[in-house]
Amino acid sequence: MSVNAKHEAREETPLRVALLGCGVVGASVARLLVEGRDDFAARIGRPLDVVGVAVRRLGRDRRDTGLPDELFTTDAEELVTRADIVVEVIGGIEPARSLILRAFEHGASVVTANKALLAEDGPRLYEAARAHGVDLYYEASVAGAIPLLRPLRESLAGDDVRTVLGIVNGTTNYVLDKMDSTGQGFAEAVEQAQALGYAEADPTADVEGFDAAAKAAILASLAFHSRVTAPDVYREGISEVTASDVRAAAEMDCVVKLLAICERQQREDGGQGISVRVHPAMIPRSHPLASVREAFNAVFVEAEAAGELMFYGPGAGGDPTASAVLGDVVAVARHRVGGGLGPAESAYADLPVLPMGQTRTRYYLSLDVADRPGVLAQVAEAFSRHGVSIQQVRQTVAADDRSSAELVIVTHRATDEALGATVREIGDLDVVVGVSSVMRVEGE
Amino acid sequence: MSVNAKHEAREETPLRVALLGCGVVGASVARLLVEGRDDFAARIGRPLDVVGVAVRRLGRDRRDTGLPDELFTTDAEELVTRADIVVEVIGGIEPARSLILRAFEHGASVVTANKALLAEDGPRLYEAARAHGVDLYYEASVAGAIPLLRPLRESLAGDDVRTVLGIVNGTTNYVLDKMDSTGQGFAEAVEQAQALGYAEADPTADVEGFDAAAKAAILASLAFHSRVTAPDVYREGISEVTASDVRAAAEMDCVVKLLAICERQQREDGGQGISVRVHPAMIPRSHPLASVREAFNAVFVEAEAAGELMFYGPGAGGDPTASAVLGDVVAVARHRVGGGLGPAESAYADLPVLPMGQTRTRYYLSLDVADRPGVLAQVAEAFSRHGVSIQQVRQTVAADDRSSAELVIVTHRATDEALGATVREIGDLDVVVGVSSVMRVEGE
Ligand SMILES: NC(=O)c1ccc[n+]([C@@H]2O[C@H](COP(=O)([O-])OP(=O)(O)OC[C@H]3O[C@@H](n4cnc5c(N)ncnc54)[C@H](OP(=O)(O)O)[C@@H]3O)[C@@H](O)[C@H]2O)c1
Ligand SMILES: NC(=O)c1ccc[n+]([C@@H]2O[C@H](COP(=O)([O-])OP(=O)(O)OC[C@H]3O[C@@H](n4cnc5c(N)ncnc54)[C@H](OP(=O)(O)O)[C@@H]3O)[C@@H](O)[C@H]2O)c1
Repeated sequence: MSVNAKHEAREETPLRVALLGCGVVGASVARLLVEGRDDFAARIGRPLDVVGVAVRRLGRDRRDTGLPDELFTTDAEELVTRADIVVEVIGGIEPARSLILRAFEHGASVVTANKALLAEDGPRLYEAARAHGVDLYYEASVAGAIPLLRPLRESLAGDDVRTVLGIVNGTTNYVLDKMDSTGQGFAEAVEQAQALGYAEADPTADVEGFDAAAKAAILASLAFHSRVTAPDVYREGISEVTASDVRAAAEMDCVVKLLAICERQQREDGGQGISVRVHPAMIPRSHPLASVREAFNAVFVEAEAAGELMFYGPGAGGDPTASAVLGDVVAVARHRVGGGLGPAESAYADLPVLPMGQTRTRYYLSLDVADRPGVLAQVAEAFSRHGVSIQQVRQTVAADDRSSAELVIVTHRATDEALGATVREIGDLDVVVGVSSVMRVEGE
Repeated sequence: MSVNAKHEAREETPLRVALLGCGVVGASVARLLVEGRDDFAARIGRPLDVVGVAVRRLGRDRRDTGLPDELFTTDAEELVTRADIVVEVIGGIEPARSLILRAFEHGASVVTANKALLAEDGPRLYEAARAHGVDLYYEASVAGAIPLLRPLRESLAGDDVRTVLGIVNGTTNYVLDKMDSTGQGFAEAVEQAQALGYAEADPTADVEGFDAAAKAAILASLAFHSRVTAPDVYREGISEVTASDVRAAAEMDCVVKLLAICERQQREDGGQGISVRVHPAMIPRSHPLASVREAFNAVFVEAEAAGELMFYGPGAGGDPTASAVLGDVVAVARHRVGGGLGPAESAYADLPVLPMGQTRTRYYLSLDVADRPGVLAQVAEAFSRHGVSIQQVRQTVAADDRSSAELVIVTHRATDEALGATVREIGDLDVVVGVSSVMRVEGE
């Protein structure tokens, strides 16, 4: 029976797939489409034919894809006009955006892995897809192989998401994990990551949090049925994280992770808002995200009815990312065969993004203070003046230096503004010799 | 704009929802539908109206649902004829099956949480849904709130699943976790689980693995595009797991978990087959599933392109299960509004289920042996006679008894048949005083 089903499916007119880009992800997509031809046909009900692959330069060896040379072209504009499904894995804003819009105009559905473009101009693309009655799918744009956007957009469509906490950048997780496990400093860990292929020659987009911020915008839009774009996301990278920050975290039984955080919060006027931010944070070692090692990704989601969920897996790489792309290809192909469209953009809730200053977070501070009576009182007073309440405080006298002590403070949740002002004021106190670590605390 | 959108949606003719059952899950579904009315309307494009709730007995207090008394009925047969969407949360085979089939005949789509029914008669239900052009969704039937079936059926539709390893029964995970953390025996841990509401008065369905076996059948069907029903699943519960098994696992730096395992394996004739089984197994403490505590569920999936994925969350409870049910309700409602249907049953691969004897697993054995030369040779010979190769062996002399020793053996993968025969033969050897622990080893 399965043989018949396969056979029948193969007889049907194939769906035409155009591949834009044949790099790390594109080459895997091509190869898997060729190798899995019979399975795709059986799963969809019609076979998939790769009708062309657009690249920047012809003449490179593309034999690993299993596709004949004549399918490769530099004329992407023409290619998208003769496809039912366009897979965009070029990356960047242009020409990716124009090609996607052009594909819609010619009636093609689009699958993309392009987080930068979606975070910058998602709403325009969703609208264009809708206007032309075609699909736009982008599971691979966040957290690579991990099924995450479909669960948020569909499985949790009957629930209300409270928080999304994600490790969505493999490079920075690799760097922070090495700093934690070896005691290395930032620069050294980055070099090692580069040597092993986990970080690019210019690691800025990763270590400064741009990549994670684009993903945070996509996640927040889906989780909160609102429009969030990259410029709405508060962003701090990990280049200022020191070996001593990581050690301080370890002393608190915490690890430092670069997190993409999307949270529903109360606004000062009582309404609902969302905080969307990317920054390094301490999380307790007992938190499910703490054990995410090396370049793996994981996303923790808390929803009103579902409770705490976690999704874990490889966040990048050719084949893992292609897995997500191909899941989307099957979905849009099934719509071609059976009718219907995937869920449209849902932005009805239209929640405002809170400015970082109004976002409520917790802080960890480690201070070098003079070891004399009254120091704690002065420090505590500065907190109280800004309405920040202290959750935990610990003072240790340095073994080798009886005149100074270390004061470690963890606050309750307060606005980032109040916390920032408190830290500045404390740094100026006479009794404070220096502020050795300041970091936000998440995950409780 | 969001206010307008909500308003417009509310003006549209509502979709009629019939709820069958109003117990743990049904009451949560009802309450969340009432509380979230505006959000459902905005997310779907049309409001959802609960037109009736079928229960066994009228006259109970159902005010927690927020629904008026007159909606409750004992006439489920009539109720399903006047709904667009039927939510079946009665459980069991009948009358659930007849009601679902009747709903299809009257043109309604169905959302169910009923693993027992799907594992027994899934294919018939899928066919009936297809024949009537309606949807059958069942995300809540496996692993409660965790988005799992949608990822398997849709996100991984372009990939090939190799293995699914799942902790899909909260009761048994709670019991095994307590045995591990406190050293308690099975009976004591079950009593405690009962006292805390984690186990039912009659815990048979959970501790003997029936519940997990139904879920394994559902998972294997989806993962391998094949038809697997409950009787195909090899099943062993945890009632024979002793405190000393758990201790032995701990000594190996392992934990004991009840796993639902679905694996693609080579048949003896070279073709592909699948092994679908539920049994307690040792897994290394470093495995992502090992840290799943208490009554939580988690499912580990390995796919060719995606690599290793894990999904984690609450596997049961009213609200968590309702979250999954309501995600499905939104999906089928969106199809009503926008056209189309969810993906049909995909069973084209039609892979045969291997008999347990031909399934390849690894074994752990702990033997009390006489402490004299030649014992290891005799034991090793028994393994080799059955073609089972030993991966690891450790011998320790009991401190208090110089005449006996403990021999711990871990094998490489071999057929379950060969392993069973080896264990029986070893038990009969003169030099073996007793076999104190035998358990399968998974997760490497
Ligand atoms: N790599 C990952 O692990 C990963 C993970 C998740 C998401 N993504 C996303 O996937 C997308 C692709 O990433 P990648 O790593 O595969 O990139 P890549 O290796 O740099 O490949 C880019 C491909 O696009 C082609 N290309 C560039 N400019 C073009 C143009 N103007 N017209 C036609 N083709 C053009 C290149 O052609 P040539 O071959 O001729 O240079 C190359 O084949 C990006 O949006 C990225 O963010 C990647
Ligand atoms: N509980 C969980 O955490 C969980 C998790 C995942 C999946 N599920 C699945 O969800 C389903 C429901 O479970 P549950 O725990 O909610 O069960 P439950 O608490 O026992 O509730 C069953 C409901 O069905 C009603 N009912 C029983 N027989 C009926 C009949 N012949 N006609 C009409 N109504 C009838 C009962 O009415 P009365 O109220 O009058 O008794 C009750 O409201 C099952 O398939 C279960 O496997 C449950």
